[in-house]
Amino acid sequence: MTGSTGGGWPPMREELRGIEPYGAPQLDVPVQLNVNENPYGPSEACVADIAAAAAAAAGTLNRYPDREFVALREALAAYLSKDTPAGIVPEQVWAANGSNEVMLQLLQAFGGPGRTAVSFAPTYSMYPEYARDTNTRWVAGRRAEDFALDLDAARDLVKTEQPSVILLPSPNNPTGTALPPEAVGVLCEAAGDDGIVVVDEAYGEFRRTGVPSALELLASYRNLVVTRTMSKAFAGAGLRLGYLAAAPEICDAIRVVRLPYHLSAVTQAVALAALGHAPELLGKVDDLRRERDALVDWLRAEAYDVADSDANFVLFGRFADRHAVWQGLLDQGVLIRETGPEGWLRVSVGTPDEMAAFRAALTDVNGERA
Amino acid sequence: MTGSTGGGWPPMREELRGIEPYGAPQLDVPVQLNVNENPYGPSEACVADIAAAAAAAAGTLNRYPDREFVALREALAAYLSKDTPAGIVPEQVWAANGSNEVMLQLLQAFGGPGRTAVSFAPTYSMYPEYARDTNTRWVAGRRAEDFALDLDAARDLVKTEQPSVILLPSPNNPTGTALPPEAVGVLCEAAGDDGIVVVDEAYGEFRRTGVPSALELLASYRNLVVTRTMSKAFAGAGLRLGYLAAAPEICDAIRVVRLPYHLSAVTQAVALAALGHAPELLGKVDDLRRERDALVDWLRAEAYDVADSDANFVLFGRFADRHAVWQGLLDQGVLIRETGPEGWLRVSVGTPDEMAAFRAALTDVNGERA
Repeated sequence: MTGSTGGGWPPMREELRGIEPYGAPQLDVPVQLNVNENPYGPSEACVADIAAAAAAAAGTLNRYPDREFVALREALAAYLSKDTPAGIVPEQVWAANGSNEVMLQLLQAFGGPGRTAVSFAPTYSMYPEYARDTNTRWVAGRRAEDFALDLDAARDLVKTEQPSVILLPSPNNPTGTALPPEAVGVLCEAAGDDGIVVVDEAYGEFRRTGVPSALELLASYRNLVVTRTMSKAFAGAGLRLGYLAAAPEICDAIRVVRLPYHLSAVTQAVALAALGHAPELLGKVDDLRRERDALVDWLRAEAYDVADSDANFVLFGRFADRHAVWQGLLDQGVLIRETGPEGWLRVSVGTPDEMAAFRAALTDVNGERA
Repeated sequence: MTGSTGGGWPPMREELRGIEPYGAPQLDVPVQLNVNENPYGPSEACVADIAAAAAAAAGTLNRYPDREFVALREALAAYLSKDTPAGIVPEQVWAANGSNEVMLQLLQAFGGPGRTAVSFAPTYSMYPEYARDTNTRWVAGRRAEDFALDLDAARDLVKTEQPSVILLPSPNNPTGTALPPEAVGVLCEAAGDDGIVVVDEAYGEFRRTGVPSALELLASYRNLVVTRTMSKAFAGAGLRLGYLAAAPEICDAIRVVRLPYHLSAVTQAVALAALGHAPELLGKVDDLRRERDALVDWLRAEAYDVADSDANFVLFGRFADRHAVWQGLLDQGVLIRETGPEGWLRVSVGTPDEMAAFRAALTDVNGERA
C-alpha cells in the first residue's frame, strides 16, 4: 500500500490500478441463476403498498430523511425478534444500503490501518474488497476440503493474527456451507474484547431444519454481530437494504462513521412497506429449500461433486474447463456464476421451470462434452 | 492514527472514540431553516410520477438493480449538458446515495493512507470526516477575513502539500461564498497530474447572475471534478442522490471502489422520475435567490455582519453568545444552524412566510438581549 501518486493518470491509489470493478455479468437472458436472487417477485398488493409508501415519502421529498431511521429500526427489531429468544430492541439494529454498506461501515469503525480482518476461503469475494477499501490488513485462512470450517485451525488463526474483525458467513458464499454450531461461541471467545465476530447470514433464512441462527447467541456474546439482508429470502434485491443485530454499543460505533442520511426517505418507506408483507415475501422460502435439496440430489445422481447447501444456491463440479461449461449453459439461455474454487460452478435456486431449464441445459452441455 | 485495540470496549478505532455522530439536531418545529432544504415540495403530478416509478421498480424488486445505472447516467448527463458548453456524455457522470457518498468514493479512490486532502476553512464540516474515514491526511488552509479564497495562498498550499484531492465548495458551506472565477484553472494547474480538484457545487444552482459554474471548465482540465446534488435546488433531500461530472477515467476509477449495486432500483427509478420534472422542481430557484438577496439586505440594514451568499443560506453575526441566540429563535419555533466560525449563525432561505417568522423572531430575541 502506498500513497505515491507517481505513475499514470488518473492519480488513483496504486493498489486500485488495473482492477476490474466487482460484479457478475448483467446479461439479459431467459434464465437468470447467477446472483442468488429470489425468483419470486412481490404480489400486486405488495407492489401497491410500496407505491403508496413511495408516494407518501415523495410528498415531503424536499426534506431530509430521519437520520436515525427509527421506524425502520423498530420494524427490523420486531422481525428479528422472531428468531431471537431474548428478543431484539431497536438500539441493537443497524441498517444501510445493502449488507455490503453494513460491512464497509463495520470495517471503517473496527478495521482500518494497523488492524486485521480474517475470514476463511473460499468465501465471499467482496470481503477482501471491503478490507482493501478500508485499508484493513486481510488474512484468509483455509476451509477444509469439504468447505466446512476447521474450528481448531480457525481458533489458532484468530489467536495468531488477533484480528479486530472476523467475517464468518453462514451459510458461506459461494459454497453454501453453514457454520458448525459451536463455531460462533468458540470464535467470539477467541476474539475477546479486541475483536468483533460478524456472522453474515445473508442467506440465513434458507438454512436447513436444525441449523441454528447466530441470533440465538447475541445475548451470550457482546462482540457478536449478525448481519442479514432483504435481498435474498426477502425477495428485495432491488431495494438494497442490509441490516445487522448487535450490542447497542456496536451500533453506536457505526453511527460515528456512517454518512449522514445514508438511508433515503424512499428506501426507509419502501423497506417498511415490504416488511409489512414479510409473510408473503418469505412465503417462498420453503419452496426454494425443497427445490435446492432436489437440485443437490439430482446433481449427485448425475455424479457431480456437490457441496452441502444451507443457502439458495449450490456449488457443484468439478470441471476441467468450467468456463466452457458456463458458456455452454449461457448459449442455451441459462446464466449461472463462474465463481469459487477452480473447477466449480455456482447455480442459484430458481423456480421449478428455471431449474428444469438448467438441468436440461447442463445435460446437453455435458453430453456434448462427453 | 493507530491500529491498537487496547483501551475500552467496543474495540472501535481510537480516533473514533467519544466522537458524536455528525448531524444537525432533527427537531419537529414549525419553521425549519437549519439544513438548507428547499422549502417547496413536489407537485401532485410529480408525486404521482414518482409513485408510478416506484411501483414499476417494485414489480421486479426481487432482482438486483442495474449496477451501472445507465438510464440515470444518461438523464443526468442531459441535465448537466445545459450548463456545459461542450456537453456532457454519460461516461462523464457518476452518482451515489447523496453527494457525501460521492465524496467518500472519491477519497477512497484518490485519497487514503499516505495521501493528503486539502480544503480551506471555514468550510463544510463533513470534509474532515470523509478524510478521517478514508485515513487520508487532512490539511485545512484558511480563507480570507471575508471568507473569500485567497488564491495565491491557496496555490502556495497546494504546491507545498501536494494533495491528491482538493475540495473546493462553490458556493462554500457555511459561508455562501463562490470561488473567484480564475480559482479553478489556477488550482487545477497547481494540482497537476498528481491531484484532482473537486468543485462541490451542491448549491451551484443558486449562484448569482454572472457567477460561472465549474462545469464550463471540464473540457479544459482533465483533473477537474464537479459535484452536484438533487438535495437542494432540486428539492430532493429525501431522495439522497448526489452526482458528479468528470473525465471518464475518473468515473472508472470510482467504479473500482464503489459497492456493487450501490444505487437501488427504487432510487434510480425515483431519481429518473424527478429529473423528468426538473423545470417544476427547479422552478422555485429564482424565488429563493430573490428571497436570499432580500434577507441579506434586511440583515445588513439591521446592522448584522453578513457574508455575501451565492447559496440558499446566509451566514450572519456576530454574536457574543451565538448559542443563546440560536436557542432564543428555537424557543419561538424557528430552527436555524449553529455552525461556522465562532460568533456566526447560518439560516436557510425558506418561504416568504418562514422568512417573516425568522425576521420577527430574530428582532424579538435581539430586543430581549439589547
